[in-house]
Amino acid sequence: MPFLRGRQMKKRAVVLLVGLVGLCALLLIASHSNRTAATEALSRQDDPFAEIARLKRHLVLMKAKGCVEEDDDLPVIFAITPTYARPEQKAELTRLSQTLLLVPSLHWVVVEDADKPTKLVTNLLESSGLSYTHLHAHTPPAQKLKAKDPHWTKPRGVLQRNTALEWLRSDGPLQVAPLDPEGIPKGVVYFADDDNSYSVRLFEEMRNVRGVGVWPVGLVGGLMVERPIAAADGHGVASFNAGYKPERPFPIDMAGFGINLGLLRDHPHAKFLYEVEPGYQESQLLKQLTSREKLEVLAQNCTKVYVWHTRTDKPKMREELQWKDQGRPPSNLGIEV
Amino acid sequence: MPFLRGRQMKKRAVVLLVGLVGLCALLLIASHSNRTAATEALSRQDDPFAEIARLKRHLVLMKAKGCVEEDDDLPVIFAITPTYARPEQKAELTRLSQTLLLVPSLHWVVVEDADKPTKLVTNLLESSGLSYTHLHAHTPPAQKLKAKDPHWTKPRGVLQRNTALEWLRSDGPLQVAPLDPEGIPKGVVYFADDDNSYSVRLFEEMRNVRGVGVWPVGLVGGLMVERPIAAADGHGVASFNAGYKPERPFPIDMAGFGINLGLLRDHPHAKFLYEVEPGYQESQLLKQLTSREKLEVLAQNCTKVYVWHTRTDKPKMREELQWKDQGRPPSNLGIEV
Repeated sequence: MPFLRGRQMKKRAVVLLVGLVGLCALLLIASHSNRTAATEALSRQDDPFAEIARLKRHLVLMKAKGCVEEDDDLPVIFAITPTYARPEQKAELTRLSQTLLLVPSLHWVVVEDADKPTKLVTNLLESSGLSYTHLHAHTPPAQKLKAKDPHWTKPRGVLQRNTALEWLRSDGPLQVAPLDPEGIPKGVVYFADDDNSYSVRLFEEMRNVRGVGVWPVGLVGGLMVERPIAAADGHGVASFNAGYKPERPFPIDMAGFGINLGLLRDHPHAKFLYEVEPGYQESQLLKQLTSREKLEVLAQNCTKVYVWHTRTDKPKMREELQWKDQGRPPSNLGIEV
Repeated sequence: MPFLRGRQMKKRAVVLLVGLVGLCALLLIASHSNRTAATEALSRQDDPFAEIARLKRHLVLMKAKGCVEEDDDLPVIFAITPTYARPEQKAELTRLSQTLLLVPSLHWVVVEDADKPTKLVTNLLESSGLSYTHLHAHTPPAQKLKAKDPHWTKPRGVLQRNTALEWLRSDGPLQVAPLDPEGIPKGVVYFADDDNSYSVRLFEEMRNVRGVGVWPVGLVGGLMVERPIAAADGHGVASFNAGYKPERPFPIDMAGFGINLGLLRDHPHAKFLYEVEPGYQESQLLKQLTSREKLEVLAQNCTKVYVWHTRTDKPKMREELQWKDQGRPPSNLGIEV
């Protein structure tokens, strides 16, 4: 069951935007014949770039308060986040939601591994200030990682990401994204796990991807950075600097690519599978959509790192377990952590 | 060597704002008699002053929409972050800087454990859009944690936090924060480590602390949440729900309290020490400044969690080491990760 927001807000935003553009044009026209006054009012400063940074920061703060005039024609970034209940879930989703708040025209698709939406995630989304869709899909018991299993023995998020792909091919995105002349929603799809670290610059890199865009990912596959190497002839990727299974068709992490929404809708059967070797999820999806020669090499020819594959330690709950043994109530009784 | 920014900018901002409001009025009046003027002024320029004008105009227009500007009289939050070089440093500082960007009137004091400022941190701060002070203090070798030592055997950040405390008692904050009638800078001091997770709500909780404010911290001390329990008579804290060493004078994590800057300046010798038992750093500082009865109980009587003591896994560098053994160049050659 998707929960949607945004359409009404968008309409209001369009009305405001038209009004504001009009006012802005008036002011600019007027300022053209008032150059002297304008120049005088702009007292020169020692460090204009510091002033620019300060002003941008103000704009970011205002945006966080819901004051932004977004460009309604920007392609929308659909950030897909599979998530599951665990002690550190709220911390990680909070952190990620605050990063996403800094990105214009972003729609967050959160897919819970649960048989119904949880209160924790529902509350978090409602108070996030983000445009979002809340989905859920319960991983079948046979596919669940057991407590003692190493994390790489079972693929995680397969069903949840496929549920998001289904939504992306439905009418859902039509409600959220601007349409191109053929009526296709303009957007790009990114798999943003809740434990990675993202620079806001990453999202602007991917916004105008026409097919599949790729970029480096830090701290992954046993390396400081895994990255595609651009082809000398300017057509796509020649090879990949990857340490872990470099023989994969696309030796690349889930965080290292973005897919044009139209391309995804043109390939209605492309999806993730449980039955692939560990580490082959990304290759399995990408080979259905593109080839190495067609990849768009972003982040300054793949020389900049804007996303890191960080992992959060499982918090140790020694004292919590001792309290339980002593018959004391849990430390979080009645408190959402 | 501190690098300062802020106070002068604030004064300039007030002057500019007054000027701009006046200019805006002028332009509006002028626009009535200049409707037919050319529109070529609409073309954007590379001139930073044109960019400043554009951003200012944007802010003025947003203000006209009822969006609130930053209040120059708000107490400033001084967030103290000790940091040291490691593979995940940039990821964590990037993530934290983006959270802080959402907090109005915040000044970030970053203290590197290094004998001089590093390029990585310098670049990160310069492009962060935040108001900041960049300090450094090198931990003496005798106090360094060895690679195989458990993390709790040596206190970390002692010297770096003391360096920040020195700066907070210097003229530095006078340049950054508004002054009260006695000429004391209005602000609150918070120790914000670079690996924790923060809700932006936390910072508004602490902003008006008059002495020392306290609140719950999630995922710490072996519990889901550690928290102070308010006294029934409304005076401070009666006890602490803590699992780890509950006998400490203040069984509370570094992330669980904020200190009024005036109080800190009234106690010029209060600081952290190397020579205290593990887990007693917080108590050692707080007992010099306050008592349990005087603590201000925040976050809805300590029932809400707005900060989590998350820890990031040390990334495994297996393939990186193999490459080294094979004589291959490092994966991050020439690339900042």
